[in-house]
Amino acid sequence: MPELVVLSILAEDYAVKIPKTADIQKVAPLLCAGITTYSPIRFSNVKKGDNVAVAGFGGLGHMALQYMVKLGAKVTVFDITDDKKADAIRLGAVWYVNVNNPAELEGLNNQFSFVISTIPDKYDPMMYVRMLKKGGELAVVGMPSLEKTPVVPTTFLAFAAHRKVYGSVIGGIKETQEMLDYSVKNSIYPEVKIISANQLDDAYRNVKFRYVIDVKTLK
Amino acid sequence: MPELVVLSILAEDYAVKIPKTADIQKVAPLLCAGITTYSPIRFSNVKKGDNVAVAGFGGLGHMALQYMVKLGAKVTVFDITDDKKADAIRLGAVWYVNVNNPAELEGLNNQFSFVISTIPDKYDPMMYVRMLKKGGELAVVGMPSLEKTPVVPTTFLAFAAHRKVYGSVIGGIKETQEMLDYSVKNSIYPEVKIISANQLDDAYRNVKFRYVIDVKTLK
Repeated sequence: MPELVVLSILAEDYAVKIPKTADIQKVAPLLCAGITTYSPIRFSNVKKGDNVAVAGFGGLGHMALQYMVKLGAKVTVFDITDDKKADAIRLGAVWYVNVNNPAELEGLNNQFSFVISTIPDKYDPMMYVRMLKKGGELAVVGMPSLEKTPVVPTTFLAFAAHRKVYGSVIGGIKETQEMLDYSVKNSIYPEVKIISANQLDDAYRNVKFRYVIDVKTLK
Repeated sequence: MPELVVLSILAEDYAVKIPKTADIQKVAPLLCAGITTYSPIRFSNVKKGDNVAVAGFGGLGHMALQYMVKLGAKVTVFDITDDKKADAIRLGAVWYVNVNNPAELEGLNNQFSFVISTIPDKYDPMMYVRMLKKGGELAVVGMPSLEKTPVVPTTFLAFAAHRKVYGSVIGGIKETQEMLDYSVKNSIYPEVKIISANQLDDAYRNVKFRYVIDVKTLK
């Protein structure tokens, strides 16, 4: 196992305590992908038995799945290929949908109390709004560039009455600490591959869930 | 007072009972502007002491104001001129904002737990989203044509984290009956002007709140 060193200089108010029992190689992504998904899942009060979904199954999506499985929700995962189906099922999804296969989208309207979208590209958020039950919530945490930002046309929103959309970005320090304690206590971690600094370019182009750079390899 | 006759043939399931004590000249708009605003106000649980707002002060907006005033909320009204300020204050608004006067928009972010937008034209919904407190809700009931539909870009929504947007159209028969009983009991009515059928063209072009056509004048 490579020795990992986390270096940072910051004001005490912005530091979080990493529990001693943490799997230290996997902690770094929790502070971004972890809190970004944990925060809206808690905000929307996802709980045992809820029928929920994750749209976009990458670094953020696979954290969202694990938190919601741990809370006892029944989680459906949406992605654009079949490539990640096995991973989704292994991590606890009850259903997997390849949105590029129209047949798989049938019968999904009015099903979910909560959907979290981590999709980092252009798409139609209304597809997921229509999958919500009355009072259900779509939390958008995916952040495409402004030119590609998915838009919600309010006239369509009115016809999917009483389904809510909100956005969320990361979370405050207090909630980040809570997320970290919760994650470590429940062994919820990102799937990571440890790489050396010189592998960065290739990793950036081919990321599946999360890479962690062994800082010892930084020159 | 002209004699008013309401004629309609419909299945019993789609009929509502007009309370005997109702001010019959003013009942018709309740069945559209009334229920369209009453439904989201109830859905979002607007209550005594809440700081809320109405965006767009016409037929729908002046009903929304009255319902929320009756519930004990502190209501701010937004419109695009000063023309309706006196009406808004008379009907119970605590504040009136002409959005075309930028100075009046200052200091309004993070103020409201609920905003209902009845605006029937293009505008930026994000202006009102940013005026919501965390957990606050923007209910959109205004319905411009699809080409003019206001859009919510989800990337901006993420930066106004945890503020929710939803749409709503009218309401079911059960809630319409509830609204009707509530409105009559609390003397909540539209401001109406009774016109004859041949005044329709002019009325349509110059509507302020609501006109009601005296059907006796129909030939």
